[in-house]
Parts: sequence; C-alpha cells; structure tokens
Amino acid sequence: MQTKTLQNHFTKLHSHKAFEVFVISVIIISALLVGAKTYNISPMAQQIITLLDWAITFIFLAEISIRFIGDEHKSRFFFNAWNLFDTLIVIASLIPVEDSEMALLGRTIRIFRVLRMVSFVPELRLLLNALVSALPQLGYVVALMFIIFYIYGAIGSFLFEAINPVLWGDISISMLTLFRIMTFEDWTDVMYETMEVYSLSWLFYLSFIFFTAFAFLNIVIGIVVNVLEKENERVRREESDEDEVTLEALQLQLTEIKTLLANQNTASTKSDIH
Amino acid sequence: MQTKTLQNHFTKLHSHKAFEVFVISVIIISALLVGAKTYNISPMAQQIITLLDWAITFIFLAEISIRFIGDEHKSRFFFNAWNLFDTLIVIASLIPVEDSEMALLGRTIRIFRVLRMVSFVPELRLLLNALVSALPQLGYVVALMFIIFYIYGAIGSFLFEAINPVLWGDISISMLTLFRIMTFEDWTDVMYETMEVYSLSWLFYLSFIFFTAFAFLNIVIGIVVNVLEKENERVRREESDEDEVTLEALQLQLTEIKTLLANQNTASTKSDIH
Amino acid sequence: MQTKTLQNHFTKLHSHKAFEVFVISVIIISALLVGAKTYNISPMAQQIITLLDWAITFIFLAEISIRFIGDEHKSRFFFNAWNLFDTLIVIASLIPVEDSEMALLGRTIRIFRVLRMVSFVPELRLLLNALVSALPQLGYVVALMFIIFYIYGAIGSFLFEAINPVLWGDISISMLTLFRIMTFEDWTDVMYETMEVYSLSWLFYLSFIFFTAFAFLNIVIGIVVNVLEKENERVRREESDEDEVTLEALQLQLTEIKTLLANQNTASTKSDIH
Amino acid sequence: MQTKTLQNHFTKLHSHKAFEVFVISVIIISALLVGAKTYNISPMAQQIITLLDWAITFIFLAEISIRFIGDEHKSRFFFNAWNLFDTLIVIASLIPVEDSEMALLGRTIRIFRVLRMVSFVPELRLLLNALVSALPQLGYVVALMFIIFYIYGAIGSFLFEAINPVLWGDISISMLTLFRIMTFEDWTDVMYETMEVYSLSWLFYLSFIFFTAFAFLNIVIGIVVNVLEKENERVRREESDEDEVTLEALQLQLTEIKTLLANQNTASTKSDIH
Repeated sequence: MQTKTLQNHFTKLHSHKAFEVFVISVIIISALLVGAKTYNISPMAQQIITLLDWAITFIFLAEISIRFIGDEHKSRFFFNAWNLFDTLIVIASLIPVEDSEMALLGRTIRIFRVLRMVSFVPELRLLLNALVSALPQLGYVVALMFIIFYIYGAIGSFLFEAINPVLWGDISISMLTLFRIMTFEDWTDVMYETMEVYSLSWLFYLSFIFFTAFAFLNIVIGIVVNVLEKENERVRREESDEDEVTLEALQLQLTEIKTLLANQNTASTKSDIH
Repeated sequence: MQTKTLQNHFTKLHSHKAFEVFVISVIIISALLVGAKTYNISPMAQQIITLLDWAITFIFLAEISIRFIGDEHKSRFFFNAWNLFDTLIVIASLIPVEDSEMALLGRTIRIFRVLRMVSFVPELRLLLNALVSALPQLGYVVALMFIIFYIYGAIGSFLFEAINPVLWGDISISMLTLFRIMTFEDWTDVMYETMEVYSLSWLFYLSFIFFTAFAFLNIVIGIVVNVLEKENERVRREESDEDEVTLEALQLQLTEIKTLLANQNTASTKSDIH
Repeated sequence: MQTKTLQNHFTKLHSHKAFEVFVISVIIISALLVGAKTYNISPMAQQIITLLDWAITFIFLAEISIRFIGDEHKSRFFFNAWNLFDTLIVIASLIPVEDSEMALLGRTIRIFRVLRMVSFVPELRLLLNALVSALPQLGYVVALMFIIFYIYGAIGSFLFEAINPVLWGDISISMLTLFRIMTFEDWTDVMYETMEVYSLSWLFYLSFIFFTAFAFLNIVIGIVVNVLEKENERVRREESDEDEVTLEALQLQLTEIKTLLANQNTASTKSDIH
Repeated sequence: MQTKTLQNHFTKLHSHKAFEVFVISVIIISALLVGAKTYNISPMAQQIITLLDWAITFIFLAEISIRFIGDEHKSRFFFNAWNLFDTLIVIASLIPVEDSEMALLGRTIRIFRVLRMVSFVPELRLLLNALVSALPQLGYVVALMFIIFYIYGAIGSFLFEAINPVLWGDISISMLTLFRIMTFEDWTDVMYETMEVYSLSWLFYLSFIFFTAFAFLNIVIGIVVNVLEKENERVRREESDEDEVTLEALQLQLTEIKTLLANQNTASTKSDIH
C-alpha cells in the first residue's frame, strides 16, 4: 500500500509543470557547461564546472529514479529506448573524469547529455521518431545507391590506384573519394589528375554524378511523396468525418422509398382485387 | 473639425497614385545614391549626393508625417512594425554623416532605407510577412538541428582542437566550421587534416553530413507541405462555393419524397377502409 | 488567283514531313559545323566548312521565304517573335565572315543558328514558352532577392573595401562576390579574410546565406506550386468531363419523381372524391 | 515428357526460398571478393580468391542454366534484358584473368557481377525499371539543356580559347568546363581568369548558371509532378474501388423508382377507369 502511494506521489511529481521546467533548465545548464569546457578557462571556473557537473549528474540520477519509481510497469521500463538511453548516459556520467585515460570517454558522454533535451521534450522525441520511421521505406533506393558506390569504387580503385593511392588506394578510400565527388567538393581536381593518364575518365565521373544525382533525387522524392501521402490521408479522414451525408446514406433512403412504393403497389393491387 | 478635415485630406493624398509613384521613385533614387557612394566619385558628385541625401531625408520625413496625420488611430500608429521601422530609419538619417565617428553608422542606416521599398510596396510586405509567418512552425526542426550542431561542435572541439585550433578552437568556432562542412565548402581539406591523427574521423564528418542533410530536407519538406496545404485549403473552399447541389440537398429532397409517399400510403389505407 | 495558289502550294510544302526532316537535318549539320570550327582543322576542311556554311545560309533563306510566302497574314508575320528571330539570324548570316573585324560577330551569329532547333521543333518552342511564362509570377520574390543582394552589397562594399578591393571594390563587384557566396564557392576564404579585421563579420555571411537560401527556396516552391496547380486544374477538368452522372442530374431526376408523386396524389385525391 | 518434368523441376528449384538465399549469398560473396582484390593481399589470400572466383563463376553458370531450362518460352529467354545481361556477365567471366592483356577487362567484368544483385532481387529490378521509365518523358527538357550547353560551349571556345586552352580548347572541353561551372566547382577561378581579358564575361557565366539552374529545376519538377501524378492516379483508383455506391448506382435506383411510379400511375388510371 505504501509503495503504491509512493508511486502515485512520484508520478504526480514527474508530470508537474514546475518539475519539467526545472529538469529542462538543468539540461540546458549541462549543455552550456559542455560548451564552456571547450574554452580556455581559469582553474577556479574549472572547479565550479566540476562541482556543477556532479550536481547535474545527481539531479539526473534523481530524475531517472523518480521516473522509474513513478512508472506502473517497472519490468518494461527499460524496453523504452529513451529510458534506457537516459539511464546509460546518467550511469556513464558517474565514471570519474579526473582519470586521464577515461577522461575523453567521460567528456564525450557528458556531451551526449545534451541529447536528453530530445528525450525529455515530447515534441522533439516525436519529431525524431517520425524522421527515423521514414527511413526503412527508402531501403531499396539506399541499397541501389550503395551498389552504385560499390561498383564505381571498385572500378576507380582498379584503374586509378597507380595514379593517386591517397584517393583510390582501396575500395573504402575510393568510396570516400566518390562521396566527395558527389558533394562536388573539388571534384575536377580529382578528374583532371586521372584524365592525364586516361583521357576518357571524365566519362567515369560524369556517369557517376548522373547516377547518384538521379538516385538521390529519388530518395528526396520518396520522402516528399511519403509525407504528402500521410498528409492527404489525414485530410481525407477529416473530410469523411465532416461529411455526415454519404452516398451510402442516400442509397439507404432510396431503398426505403422503393420498399414503400413496392408495398403501395401490392396494396393497390389488393385494393383492385378487392 | 479642422483636424478631421486635415486628416481626410492627408489620407486621400497618401492613397493617391501619383503620390505612391513619387515616393517609390524617391526610394529608388535613395537606393541608387547608396550604390553610387561605393564608387570613387569626384568631390563635386559627392556634394550633389550629400544634397540629394538631405532632400530624400526631408521627403521621407514629410511622407511619414503625412501618413501619421492621415492615420485614424494615432495612438496605435507605432504598434505597426513597418511604421516604427520607417520612423526609426528616417530619424536616424538625421544624424550628420560628416562626423567621422558616426559616419559608418549614418551610412549603414542610409543603406537600410532601401528596405523602405519593402515597407512601401504592399505586395513585398505581404510576401515578407508570409515568409516570416512560415518560420515558427519549423521551430522544433530548427531546435533539433541546433542540438546536432551543438553536440558535433562539442565533440569536434574536444577531439580536434589540438590538430587545428583555427577551425576547432572552441565550440562556437567549431559550429562555424561545421556550417562550412554542411555547405560542402572545402570540407575534405578539413577531414583529411584530422584523418591523419584519427583515421576514423571520416565517420564524424559523414554522420554529420547525413544528419544535417536529413534535418535540412525535413525543413524544406515542412515548408513545401505547408504551402501546398494552404493551397489545397484555398482550392477546397473555392470548390465548395461552386457546388450548388450538395449531397445534403439531395437528402432533403429524398426526405420530402418519403413524406409524400408516407402520406399517400396513409391516404390509400384510409381510402381502402373507406 | 495565282499568288493564292502559290501560297497554298508553299503552305503544303512547309507542313510536309519530308521538308521538316530536311530542315532539322540542316540545322543539326549547321550545329555540327559550329562545333567543328572550335577544333584545329586543316585548310581544306576549313574550305569545305565555308562552302557548307553558305549552303546552309541559302537553305535557311529559302525556308524563311517559303514560310513567309505560305503565311496567310503577311503583315503580321514579323509580330511572331520566332519568325523575327529566324529572319534576323538568317540575314545576319549574310555578313561575310572573312572580314577580320566582323569575323567574331559573324561566328557568334552562326552559333545562335543552333537555337533555330528550338524555333523549328514545336515541342521545344512550347517548353520554352512555358518556362518563360512561369517567370513573371515570381517577380516579387526576385525583387525581394535583389533588394537583399543590394543591401548586403552596399554594406559589404562599405565595410570590406579596404580589406580586399578586388572582391568588395564597389557595389556591383560586391554583388558578384555575394552571388559567389550564395553558390558556396570558396565562401569561407572570403569570410576568413574579413574576420581577421572584423571578427564578427561571420554574422554578415551567415545571415546573407540564410536570407538568400530562404528566398531561393521560396522561388523553387513558387514554381512547384504553380506547376502542380496547373496539373490539378487539368485533372479536375478531365474528371468533370468523364463524370457523366453529376449531382445536378440526380437532382433533376428527383424533381421529376416528386412531380410524378404530386400528380399521383392529386389524382388519388380526385379518385377519392370521385 | 521427360524434358517437361525437368523443366517443372527446375522452375520449382529456382523459385525455392533457400535457392534464392543461396544465390544472393553467392552474389554478396562475389561483391566482397571484388572489394578484397583492391587491397594489398598476401599471395595465399590471392590464391583463395582465385579459387572462390572460379567457384562463383560456376555457380552463376549453373544458376543461369537452371533458369534457362526452367523457362517455358526458351526462344524468348534472351529478349529479357536482365537474362541477356546475366548471361553475358557469366560468359565473360570465363575469360582467364591471368592473361595480362585481358586482365583489366576480366577484372572489370567481375565488378559488374555486383549488378547481378539488381537483376536477382525483384524489388531492385522494379525500382531501376521505374527510374529508367521516367527518363523519356524528360526528353525535351534534356534536349533544351543540351542546346544551352552546346551554344555556351561554342561561344566559350571562340572567346576564351586564347586565354586558357586547357579549359576552352574545343567545344567538348568547353562543355566539360561548363558542367563544372554548373556544379559550382571553383567556377569563380574560371570566371576571374577570363574577366581579366573580357571584363564583361561575368555575364556569360551568370546567364549560363541561371539558364541551366532553371532547366535543371524543370527537370526536377518534371520528375516530382510525374511521381505525384502516378500516386494520385493510384489513390483515385483505390478510392473508386472502395466506393461501392457510385452516382451511377444511385441513378439506376432512381430510374427504377420512376418506372415503379409510372407503372403505378398507369395502374391507378386503369383502376380509376375501371
């Protein structure tokens, strides 16, 4: 009975507006600390930051605990990706940063605490979920694009390795070079270099640019059509909710009228017989 | 009574086509003067420009005064952002540009007089309002993008500061470098430099490009869907105005027919009984 | 009578498929000659090209004449922009290219003969007309973009002229530099140079990129919405043509039924009275 | 009879899930081998790769044979572009790679075996077909773009050949340079070079960028509208399938009711007469 009361108490606390504002403020302060640490700061400021850092870790630990205790289904608490992410980030923050070997890891983890903004603000969480959920539908276009990169990477490595091993040394370096060409970043420097040996190699680059631009365009169109479809779906549903009179309703009425008329005819016939 | 007459007189003057053309001409001349001042010009031309400049300031002052006197609700005149902007620009133009210390400020303010074109032409004002009003809806995507920039800026500053402090010195410089990478501006130079120390740092750049490209794509799609939605809304409203015969009207008619038939049946039954 | 016959004869000739194919072939040969002249060619080939060039000029002259004679409304022949363009190009081709002073002009005019492909193939002509007709609707966005360029050009010229007069010398050079920045072409080189003097000048560049990107996006969306609207218009018109049964037709039938019922009721009442 | 049984047997084998998974695995291994060959590998690994390569060639040969024997219409087997492609790739793989002269060709052909992934996975095949089928509709825009490139290439070659023959030597090199300008790749370097001689040559570059950007935009919009149209078509068809009650059905019912009423009227009149 007592644990139940505690749970209700903590659920209420967690949904309280003031509590939300407080946690968001702490997340923002934690983000600012992360930024502040990239500047050259005096040892005293450094110490204040370390203190604040421990305070933030403690507050986050408390917040997670309150959320966990306030949760009705404790066994499924960690099945939620965001809960798991929050817990891991907070636990990892307990690693002491003073240790020189772990310092880099500890610092990097503190940076990811900024992502708690996404896990805490429902609108951002929804947005990210929506973005991620749009990806699988693009699977085959991405696969096709990877095949284009792989084939061109292999050809590029075979033909141009002798010319410039830094750019075309093996297939993975070649694919990185191809990504650079796709972003049009100094791609002509790469092309002119190989054209000195293979004067027709512009065909390699231009065909690659056309294929990837075309595949990329299809990815963009895929996302646009996807979004518009969902939008249309939503509008259609709204419209059908609005329309109280449907064709089906009209048909029902017409059937009723026909029955009335048929009855009448029967009656009229009877009356005639009569 | 007299002020009322004056107000009407000025309202009429302000809406007069010739007056509008005159003010637009003055704004264009003021814009040309701004451009002319960037060329090396003879002292005489300089003097003519200074004279014209004062004339323009006087005309603008007169125009604002006419608009103010012609306005019905004088107390709310400065609540309109465009009125406030126009007044501030004109008042600031009264600062003498000869003073060497204020010269730069005076010149800069004269440049912003070109913006009076937007405040004076209603179509441009509407367009700008439409653009600005589309922004808040993108708030969360922009917030998400800022978080991406902030996290990558912090990581970049931690890892790469020792390699190149000019590009990765602190989090704000890092974010500027990341913006440069997002525009694909010599981004491989930045990448190759850090790959000499951290050979896996291409992961940092590629993941950043993917995330920002994806978030950017969502901003673009957000605006497109937004515009199309408004467009569809407008079309639907037009269509429903056109359709004189609706399903509701048909249903009404069917109900009337049923009533007629029902009456008939009753009559017919009565007649039978009779 | 005789001129009428000649006109009909020429109209027929001009619409003949074989004639069209012949003219298109001549245009393509003329385009190939233009391309060939950019290569280093032997004096003999040069002579053949000169001969072919005169032959093409003669054929084009004949084609225009046939079109002119075949036209019903000769007085309005030159009101058509394409007819005027074709005639000017052909007449200008009569200028001898041997004259060294006029050579460049003569050569340039011969290049524009490639555009005859657009004037001769109706599909290309329609496409170009469609593209051009979409432009005026974008007038205000383009005006807004020009104002952005003008203001930033003036500010840039005032602030940065002392730093690099090659890039920021006067307002027109500044606007060219700004166009370069808009295309992200080595824009950081320009920015880093001015940041050495004005460390906050990144605000100038970033705000410019945001404004122009946003205005550009609106131009693109403007065109897209425009095209989709026309498309929807076309689809709606097609649909309303297809639908033989409309709500209006149904209403007409219902009115007929009501009249029938009303008549019946009257008859039935009469019969009762009877 | 026996061949028929063999055919059925092979058709079944080919459609078997396990068989599909096996062939896809072999294609992936073949792709990995292609990638592995771009790294510096020990002679032993080289030998293993050569062995695996032969095994893959044999498996592909077997797969094609099974598909061919399992096909009902053997005479039309090679009319399918994918069947033809697969067969050519497999046959070409039989060329020994040890021969130094043919080595490059043999290696290149092995790379194209990765494309068998597209020919084997129906979803990828459909996607590629969809992409390719969208191209012809863009024919005229592409033609217009080519004409723009050709005219600017010719003008560029005439005017700028003396300035920089590496970029403007002949019309084909000029068109490559123009493509580079279209991708904004160091285009200002090209422009500043020619502006030293012809100070107005920025007009050449800016007009080219505007024309190509506009034509490119139209290609993109063409594809988007195309995709959306197909999408709308699909939705409309689905909707009309869903709607069991159409206006036509309602009209049919109304006609039936009118007939009933007409009969009644006749009957009623008869009854009156009676």
